[in-house]
Amino acid sequence: MNILLLEPNELHGDGTALVADARRDHMVRVLRIVEGQELRAGMLDGMLGTATVLAIGSDGIRVRCTFDQQPSPVHDHLVLAVPRPKVLLRMLEHAAALGFAHVHLLRSWRVEHGHLHSRALDPAAWRTHLLAGLAQAGRTRLPTVRFFERFRSFTEDAMPHLDLPNARFVAHPRAAVPVASLALAADAPFVLALGPDGGWIDLEVATLAEHGFVPVSCGTHPLRTETALAVLAGQLDLLRRQAARRTLPGGA
Amino acid sequence: MNILLLEPNELHGDGTALVADARRDHMVRVLRIVEGQELRAGMLDGMLGTATVLAIGSDGIRVRCTFDQQPSPVHDHLVLAVPRPKVLLRMLEHAAALGFAHVHLLRSWRVEHGHLHSRALDPAAWRTHLLAGLAQAGRTRLPTVRFFERFRSFTEDAMPHLDLPNARFVAHPRAAVPVASLALAADAPFVLALGPDGGWIDLEVATLAEHGFVPVSCGTHPLRTETALAVLAGQLDLLRRQAARRTLPGGA
Repeated sequence: MNILLLEPNELHGDGTALVADARRDHMVRVLRIVEGQELRAGMLDGMLGTATVLAIGSDGIRVRCTFDQQPSPVHDHLVLAVPRPKVLLRMLEHAAALGFAHVHLLRSWRVEHGHLHSRALDPAAWRTHLLAGLAQAGRTRLPTVRFFERFRSFTEDAMPHLDLPNARFVAHPRAAVPVASLALAADAPFVLALGPDGGWIDLEVATLAEHGFVPVSCGTHPLRTETALAVLAGQLDLLRRQAARRTLPGGA
Repeated sequence: MNILLLEPNELHGDGTALVADARRDHMVRVLRIVEGQELRAGMLDGMLGTATVLAIGSDGIRVRCTFDQQPSPVHDHLVLAVPRPKVLLRMLEHAAALGFAHVHLLRSWRVEHGHLHSRALDPAAWRTHLLAGLAQAGRTRLPTVRFFERFRSFTEDAMPHLDLPNARFVAHPRAAVPVASLALAADAPFVLALGPDGGWIDLEVATLAEHGFVPVSCGTHPLRTETALAVLAGQLDLLRRQAARRTLPGGA
């Protein structure tokens, strides 16, 4: 937890809040906070700032907050074939930490049916993991997460209305296009589509390609979806950062 | 599991092997193999090739193997402050899949003492997870894993004898050097040092810097060690692949 993340309805009119639940335990046991200490704080879907610890009580920790910094904007989309339940919850945390604004969960051909009837597909289960990812990374924007029962209900029905970024990539280990051959503009948001373990079927890759998704590969070895998410999101973000440096005065 | 990974002592003189244990279950239940089918196969610490399914029996699956392809060489080192036990085992799997040849587990200042007395620090626990990572990624070289009881027993006693690659990086969220500003040669092996949740202390970063480790940051947001491993390994590997393309005829 690198910021104390507060929900808008936790803040009182005088700028104070009472922090209970797991955040309190973390602040006491891991961060070992003391009265008067300042912490980085964030308002969910809002600004970043500072929380000053006023009092540590048995009912919670009273803090006074000031929010004065804009968080980094997030615009990237993740399209994800539903993985097994424990992995899904971890990946939502990774996705939030990596700065995805939207997660579209799909049932693709090779998604195991059992994964669709797990409590991990209950939106109530998602929130804790998304908040943990945000608090870890010092972000505040809660990603939206939606589940599409059919691959085509995403590609045909939803996609035309989603205003997806133009930079669209589908991970495909046998893809002809290595990420190393790509370039992205400094501020270009992207969509990354990750298949299930076992991958997309060819028809799914072809359908995504029709919608502008470029099949990409991060290397010569297939990775688990969970690893591929971090590798590819990191590599695409690196392409943007390299472009940003090239446009700096004196940048190389 | 993208290759059937066999141990040298499983192969008989006639090129056949009897595959039992979890690999058998995976081949039957997930891959749904049939007799006569060919699978990608690998010999642990050896070559890649093909396994042909001869017979599916209750005692195991009999396969005939030919090994005729050199695997990708692996030379990268991971220096890792001991994370919590479940995360450690997952990270060993990631490290094997990402192609690390050597993992050096360290007790750093912020490593929780409880993590040092877990069965996850028992070398017997490591092997299953390393093999799973190799089988996933289609690799054969089993990474070495060693645990150092003290940070200085690694930096002072062991490091001079380890022949570490010259490209050395220590992940440090507040680092002045973004990965986007770096370049790596096409075939340059690297060492990546990842701290515990909460990070390295300044003295540790300074000690690693004395030994040639460049403090790097993959972005503006701190990530969990597990996510940072995949992000940074992916980004450093991308720098190598970009260099390889620049040296190709017609490469950009």
